[in-house]
Amino acid sequence: MAKPNIIKTSENPLQTIEVDVFDEYGEKLTKQIACERPLTVMLNWKEIVTLMTLGSRPEALVLGYLKNQSFLSNPEAIESVIIDWETHSAAVITKENTDHLDKALTKKTVTSGCGQGTMYGNVMKQLENYKVPQVTLKQSEIYSALEALTHYNNTYKKAGAVHGCAVCKADEVLSFVEDVGRHNAVDTLAGEMWLNQDSGDDKIFYTTGRLTSEMVIKVAQMGIPVLLSRSGVTQMGLDLAKQFGIITIARAKGLRFQAFHGADRIVFDVKGDTEA
Amino acid sequence: MAKPNIIKTSENPLQTIEVDVFDEYGEKLTKQIACERPLTVMLNWKEIVTLMTLGSRPEALVLGYLKNQSFLSNPEAIESVIIDWETHSAAVITKENTDHLDKALTKKTVTSGCGQGTMYGNVMKQLENYKVPQVTLKQSEIYSALEALTHYNNTYKKAGAVHGCAVCKADEVLSFVEDVGRHNAVDTLAGEMWLNQDSGDDKIFYTTGRLTSEMVIKVAQMGIPVLLSRSGVTQMGLDLAKQFGIITIARAKGLRFQAFHGADRIVFDVKGDTEA
Repeated sequence: MAKPNIIKTSENPLQTIEVDVFDEYGEKLTKQIACERPLTVMLNWKEIVTLMTLGSRPEALVLGYLKNQSFLSNPEAIESVIIDWETHSAAVITKENTDHLDKALTKKTVTSGCGQGTMYGNVMKQLENYKVPQVTLKQSEIYSALEALTHYNNTYKKAGAVHGCAVCKADEVLSFVEDVGRHNAVDTLAGEMWLNQDSGDDKIFYTTGRLTSEMVIKVAQMGIPVLLSRSGVTQMGLDLAKQFGIITIARAKGLRFQAFHGADRIVFDVKGDTEA
Repeated sequence: MAKPNIIKTSENPLQTIEVDVFDEYGEKLTKQIACERPLTVMLNWKEIVTLMTLGSRPEALVLGYLKNQSFLSNPEAIESVIIDWETHSAAVITKENTDHLDKALTKKTVTSGCGQGTMYGNVMKQLENYKVPQVTLKQSEIYSALEALTHYNNTYKKAGAVHGCAVCKADEVLSFVEDVGRHNAVDTLAGEMWLNQDSGDDKIFYTTGRLTSEMVIKVAQMGIPVLLSRSGVTQMGLDLAKQFGIITIARAKGLRFQAFHGADRIVFDVKGDTEA
């Protein structure tokens, strides 16, 4: 497919910086902290939103955000993405006119995800259109994915204060990203999948964060049928996962997990006390 | 002061519900999960936003949100707050005309906080106006607050997937609230302080969540000079804390903490290995 023209006026910014802190003994230590910076998104020179982000893959973040907010529907229509960290701006230029989107900007839902953001009215209206295939999943596949994921979380290990999200296939981590806002992390992965026109059908979505309504919606938008979280789930997150038919596994760490939905489609081929 | 008329058409909704989950052995367990529900905020019958919330103190949440977003400035001007969980609506009616606020709705910043939300342009413009007193803090006061806080986190202990925030004074927890979005938790406390016209000068703000830019801004808006977090801090959160002069302590748990800003105003009267 025709890839958009990605223009970056500078290198990607730092992911972490060193700062001096004082511990409970009054001793000075040097610690890494995660960077966080604004990125103002413009679609055809109309300002849409300012995202606070780590900024590791801004072009994918911006496109995923616009796609998940239903501002963009056709990747072929994207001409250019200009990332300018000097002005903290991301300009997306499309072949299609987007003026009709102004109305969508007026209705907002502030969601609950860890570092999540805003959903516009048009997204909430489209929920019933999201469908994922009703797959079955082997317990050993869950463990393979969790094992593969242990090699990531670089920024988190160094600095904390970020969430990681990943798209996995069997024991392979296809893409992993961290951000100060987990909504940014999932939007970044959504942007990559969308640009590559990857199907979500055979993928597993992993997040270190909680499964709130907004996270489940974003995964449904990606068409991914399995959702794996190291954290917990909220009632609305679970209700939506049931509505979409997403196998929803939370509290997943090491050999432990809790299947909140779709356990009937999990094949318990290895038991929890068995090395995967 | 004249308190607004708080009208609730029903009891507050449940905070947690029981669900069946299946563990890694395929065994069925019953677990509690945190509730999450939409609450659409209307200011003088104009729809402002839909918040996803646990909904424990919706009237304080809604007023704190509108105050922190600079939609409201004078608590005396609030006539009524109507909370209707049937329609998931919160209607705030004021004596003052608020039509001039429409412009503010057009510029949004999606922040990074854990379950944070949206800040409108007018907030970002006012940052330089926020000031807190340059207090000194005893290490023993930090421990007293942390000790007092161990008696809270009820929903988290039961169900996880929520963040807790508290306003403390010395060893007293003046107010504690949990929510699926930590921006909601801080807005709720801000709403209470604002209605009571409490000063933040002698308070400590505690959160289980990360100190991202938005959290630090909200604490500065409350005029609280000390920020205590069980989690980490981001670069922009720290930069803003320095700008506001907020003593910023992260990774605070038990006797351990790391002072990221204002360590020179902390009196290390007990060392980390000494029982508080």
